[in-house]
Amino acid sequence: MCKTHALSVPTAKAPFEKTTIERRELRPNDILIDIKYCGICHSDIHSAYDEWGGGMFPMVPGHEMSGVVTKVGTAVTKFAPGDRVGVGCFVDSCGTCEYCLSGEEQYCTKGVINSYNSLDYDGNLTYGGYSEHIVVKEEFVVRIPDKLDLDVASPLLCAGITTYSPLKKWNVGPGKKVAIVGMGGLGHLAVQFAHALGAEVTVLSQSNSKRDEAMELGADHYYATSDSTVFAELANRFDLILNTVSANLDVDAYLSTLRIDGTLVNVGAPSEPDSYQVFSLIMSRRSIAGSLVGGIRETQEMLDFSAQHGIAPKIEVIRAEQVDEAFERILRSDVRYRFVIDMATL
Amino acid sequence: MCKTHALSVPTAKAPFEKTTIERRELRPNDILIDIKYCGICHSDIHSAYDEWGGGMFPMVPGHEMSGVVTKVGTAVTKFAPGDRVGVGCFVDSCGTCEYCLSGEEQYCTKGVINSYNSLDYDGNLTYGGYSEHIVVKEEFVVRIPDKLDLDVASPLLCAGITTYSPLKKWNVGPGKKVAIVGMGGLGHLAVQFAHALGAEVTVLSQSNSKRDEAMELGADHYYATSDSTVFAELANRFDLILNTVSANLDVDAYLSTLRIDGTLVNVGAPSEPDSYQVFSLIMSRRSIAGSLVGGIRETQEMLDFSAQHGIAPKIEVIRAEQVDEAFERILRSDVRYRFVIDMATL
Repeated sequence: MCKTHALSVPTAKAPFEKTTIERRELRPNDILIDIKYCGICHSDIHSAYDEWGGGMFPMVPGHEMSGVVTKVGTAVTKFAPGDRVGVGCFVDSCGTCEYCLSGEEQYCTKGVINSYNSLDYDGNLTYGGYSEHIVVKEEFVVRIPDKLDLDVASPLLCAGITTYSPLKKWNVGPGKKVAIVGMGGLGHLAVQFAHALGAEVTVLSQSNSKRDEAMELGADHYYATSDSTVFAELANRFDLILNTVSANLDVDAYLSTLRIDGTLVNVGAPSEPDSYQVFSLIMSRRSIAGSLVGGIRETQEMLDFSAQHGIAPKIEVIRAEQVDEAFERILRSDVRYRFVIDMATL
Repeated sequence: MCKTHALSVPTAKAPFEKTTIERRELRPNDILIDIKYCGICHSDIHSAYDEWGGGMFPMVPGHEMSGVVTKVGTAVTKFAPGDRVGVGCFVDSCGTCEYCLSGEEQYCTKGVINSYNSLDYDGNLTYGGYSEHIVVKEEFVVRIPDKLDLDVASPLLCAGITTYSPLKKWNVGPGKKVAIVGMGGLGHLAVQFAHALGAEVTVLSQSNSKRDEAMELGADHYYATSDSTVFAELANRFDLILNTVSANLDVDAYLSTLRIDGTLVNVGAPSEPDSYQVFSLIMSRRSIAGSLVGGIRETQEMLDFSAQHGIAPKIEVIRAEQVDEAFERILRSDVRYRFVIDMATL
């Protein structure tokens, strides 16, 4: 066992405490990582506040970890000490089901093991990236390209892959018109990916406050949806809408902006149900879909793509003692666009 | 102009009356058809009762017409007098938009001209198939294979293509598990198509009353959804659910029976909105979609496929004076499975 410092919440909604946790001894295919940065994801708040239920405490959140390999198990072949690496939303899966075999571990039939708040196959509670070190199976570790700084790389490991994966799945590319709903942590990355993939990108945000930044990041058009007349103007426009907002939407209004065979893909989920008129789907063979992060193979592809195209989140690096405040600021939408904890301050 | 007998409703919800209407003189690419049979579609009732709004009266419903060509225009090349033909839900479209050019006239950008209750491009109200004769552009006429009797062929022209098209669009075939929701006019055809396409077919019907017929038509499994425990049993089972029911569903329960990347396709629309938890989509990358009939090219393909595989609706042939009664029986779900009007009785 190896002891390491971590930020943990002892009970739901409690403030963070600096504690010491234990990481397992390296198994043959394990890697010990010195975590340099960890991004804060909105789901960390849902989990630490136990808003989705099933919270196991004490909880160490964090699933956007970037760092450096310090030690490897005897059977490790992909990594060596000194390598720059990342760990995202999950740290194990069955490895044998059709989804694991096809590189989509997030849909593992047996159930993927999340990086925190999950019972590992050995029965131990997983602790996430708000921590100095972590031990992870090499198959669940990705390589961070040299061109990406470790701090900006960390949010890519959840926010990045969550938006990249559906854009690829739904064949976004040249000639396609894509709308990104919401210009937050996920949305501002989605704009960059969709632009780099060659699509014509429209941002649909509540207000005009993020117009300039959206255009800088590669958006071709920007509409403030507080003006509901925009929906008529945008009728039958898009091939794909990627909805990064977790609040309930006027689904029919958004569907009306889709072309024949267009799809509204949700990556954020409100706690209350959404509703829609079935006619909105039938009359133009439209779809409503959802997508959950992405697999390890695709996460590596996304990192390489980001390095190649100069894609990076805009981040605000904070100190360990600022995490409670950062949670509150996220809840007030007071972040452009992603907080990253500097683990050297822990 | 040519006069012909028809069944029309003078105002919304009024009983049918035998009247005389006029069909246009044959244009060069027109065909005059002696209508032998016309199926009754539930949408005829919605339209004649003006439940969807926009009803134009007097109205002659009917968009499942089968008959024989009696005369052709000077430029007609595809058909000759004596040919057995059918006309479905629409009789014209712009012919130049991307959807018309790709054979999906139902999604015509300019707006397809429906077989009845539609203003034709010349400004005249269209009258449907509850009539002895109709004049239609040859491009909107399909050929009925010799193996299909004209009476059973007629429901294929709406109920058939409405279910065949999404099964093809969503790649139903060997190795695929398909659920058909509802064993009515559409559902009992969907079962036959899905089976003939090689899929493993499950019928989800409210009660057990249609079990034997479903199995005879090619279903592999049958579940009565009045027993809500079936949803847990069917968790993550299907690649595709084709919902032929127009009532509101417990969408989340049905979604739970879909595998990763599975789709719930609706071809019937309730008047009230449906609702769903976005998590039901996200966690397994599922979709909810809709589909609208099918194009002329695919309708011909569906008729040929039906003839080849011995697919036919179960019908009850009625006389012209029984249409009001048939409407009432449809509203009581007292039909197995489709009424067809014998136009010789008009």
